[in-house]
Amino acid sequence: MIRINENFLKLKSGYLFPEIARRVSTFRRQHPDANIIRLGIGDVTLPLPPAVIEAFHRAVDEMADPATFRGYGPEQGYDFLIQAVLQNDYQPRGVKLTADEIFISDGSKCDTGNIQEIFGLDITVAVTDPVYPVYVDTNVMAGRTGPGDDQGCYSGIVYLPCTPQNNFTPPPPAEPVDLIYLCFPNNPTGAVASREILTQWVEYAREYRAVILFDAAYEAFITDPAIPHSIYEIPHAQEVAIEFRSFSKSAGFTGTRCAFTVVPKSLKAYTAAGQPILVNPIWHRRHTTKFNGVAYPVQAAAAATYTDEGKQQVREMINYYMENARLIRTSLAQLDYEVYGGASAPYIWLKTPNNLSSWDFFDKLLSQAHVVGTPGSGFGPAGQGYFRLSAFNTRTSVEEAMNRIKNLI
Amino acid sequence: MIRINENFLKLKSGYLFPEIARRVSTFRRQHPDANIIRLGIGDVTLPLPPAVIEAFHRAVDEMADPATFRGYGPEQGYDFLIQAVLQNDYQPRGVKLTADEIFISDGSKCDTGNIQEIFGLDITVAVTDPVYPVYVDTNVMAGRTGPGDDQGCYSGIVYLPCTPQNNFTPPPPAEPVDLIYLCFPNNPTGAVASREILTQWVEYAREYRAVILFDAAYEAFITDPAIPHSIYEIPHAQEVAIEFRSFSKSAGFTGTRCAFTVVPKSLKAYTAAGQPILVNPIWHRRHTTKFNGVAYPVQAAAAATYTDEGKQQVREMINYYMENARLIRTSLAQLDYEVYGGASAPYIWLKTPNNLSSWDFFDKLLSQAHVVGTPGSGFGPAGQGYFRLSAFNTRTSVEEAMNRIKNLI
Repeated sequence: MIRINENFLKLKSGYLFPEIARRVSTFRRQHPDANIIRLGIGDVTLPLPPAVIEAFHRAVDEMADPATFRGYGPEQGYDFLIQAVLQNDYQPRGVKLTADEIFISDGSKCDTGNIQEIFGLDITVAVTDPVYPVYVDTNVMAGRTGPGDDQGCYSGIVYLPCTPQNNFTPPPPAEPVDLIYLCFPNNPTGAVASREILTQWVEYAREYRAVILFDAAYEAFITDPAIPHSIYEIPHAQEVAIEFRSFSKSAGFTGTRCAFTVVPKSLKAYTAAGQPILVNPIWHRRHTTKFNGVAYPVQAAAAATYTDEGKQQVREMINYYMENARLIRTSLAQLDYEVYGGASAPYIWLKTPNNLSSWDFFDKLLSQAHVVGTPGSGFGPAGQGYFRLSAFNTRTSVEEAMNRIKNLI
Repeated sequence: MIRINENFLKLKSGYLFPEIARRVSTFRRQHPDANIIRLGIGDVTLPLPPAVIEAFHRAVDEMADPATFRGYGPEQGYDFLIQAVLQNDYQPRGVKLTADEIFISDGSKCDTGNIQEIFGLDITVAVTDPVYPVYVDTNVMAGRTGPGDDQGCYSGIVYLPCTPQNNFTPPPPAEPVDLIYLCFPNNPTGAVASREILTQWVEYAREYRAVILFDAAYEAFITDPAIPHSIYEIPHAQEVAIEFRSFSKSAGFTGTRCAFTVVPKSLKAYTAAGQPILVNPIWHRRHTTKFNGVAYPVQAAAAATYTDEGKQQVREMINYYMENARLIRTSLAQLDYEVYGGASAPYIWLKTPNNLSSWDFFDKLLSQAHVVGTPGSGFGPAGQGYFRLSAFNTRTSVEEAMNRIKNLI
């Protein structure tokens, strides 16, 4: 008799964004004329930059000609893209990596979801709270947790609350944990991690032989020059950290799908008997067995973000969104909202007024202002009473949304 | 202390195709002037059809314009592609499916590798032997097997030998198994499954409450009108089977990446307590949590294969490859090789001459004829002494390869 993976039955309610989509769609049916402004799901709105479009077209044309057509590519990604990553994302920051430490993929959601497969089931996982739900849900599916409680927390996972008191950058826990998910600039709080905080984490991981999964999908939004863009800017981080990067938010690739993961060759995990095992070849085996590479035209398009023209255009997009973030941040502050983030991240994290629950504020904002945001409680219990607004929209829509929020009852 | 998933350490040697690439690359270094003809890895050689290229370009242009730009799409795929699948792949064959039973993905390799996650770990898996290595390796990684033996077989897996005696379509085993991987038209043997054989399997699965994973990635190559293209052409198959389809081999998408999986809503798996659980919502949860959709331009390109023009162009590509297959099959038969497949599949499965081992024949073919094929033993112990040639190459190269094989010592 075929057995279901019963761990899936532990998962609480729907995944956050489908639930938001459901409520918005119900509202839209009831109010078909409402002009809804979406500052909810962190999806970009600006089109792909011209340099990317040009490279994309060129690569599609190559696929039309037998002389230049490309079938299966290397599962790890084309060398032209890997070299561009090394030369642009890492070398200028003093980070030395080699081509076989970079794995091109179709998204950081997939990578951060899949990475846990290569580790044992009997490890302790730590996440910040609030947290991107994928980190937790994929560990629930794998069976690393007990059942969930009413707040959406699962026994067996160590939650590290992010609060105004710790600047939303919690220090390592007192107890030993084995696998730590960190995301900086943070989704959803917009917090950034200083060199000192990251150094604490790297030292903790070295002491306890833990692994840090460092999600840097939003590194392009860092404006403060003191903030590291890569965890590998911290000495010895390559011994203990895997880093995730994405073209989604920086270059508008949410609907085009390209990302990469760095698995340094000096990173080790251990057998039950304590034997060290290099993690890079294990991930290589996983990646080449369960994945078949990113579409060649998409990789060519991603590589164009590293040309002089592409870099300039990507920078302009980021600046556009960051001006939105500034507008949201300052407008809300003027309305006496308690606001965080939005300075080196495209997310603004606000305390709901009058101690409204996150979903109550969601419903209020949707029904009264026709603005969609993301309930903080959807990211974990410490997100209760908070709310995420994203800077991904047109200037006009952001301005209009701020005007409507001003008039909230 | 972080623990590695020790199941990965059970995996035998490299994955088949990287090992072939290694030997070819060594040979090329030693013989830089050799004109190597690749009939090995099953990769297409014809460029994308004009209708696909046109739709691809059009969609890339949409991504350049704020009015038509698309960010995150539905993880399950765009409705325009799902509807095209339903209307062209299923309705004409009398198969009734609904849109929410189709999951668009970036490849059947990923889907057939990931699908096992939603089932329990304590189930018995059955595969045909020889078999596409991904089915087995992903179950090893998940921990459903014991260690591997010298032939690359893992304890805990039921292997169903495909032999000339059973026309390479083994009947269901005498014992109950829970999860059965079937691939027809078959990779690597090129065998097809008749309605009677598939009916036997569906009846077996219903009797033992097993699930069939039906990999139909090569269905476009079926020429015999009596052969079902979908397992759902068999009554009650929707209660017991998941089907995998791909644009890779039919429309030349190996480097463009698009496929889909069908998970019928009437399919059930069971808890340890025997409670039936619908599989479709579980796969939906997995797919939406760990995957973020296929690039919009790629889905638009895939949809173009269903236009009148696209269908005609895809048909011409298939016919071209199938003429290659016929050439290989008849040429080898004339040389007194024992050959199978190649009539409704792009693969020709041959018995090595003089009882050579598969890898010895690989080395002989590479060194003497500069032709790359795939050793049958790489697909499982019953593949030992067999060899796979693929029809994916130019006519000239196929003819040249056949001439060289004629002159083998």
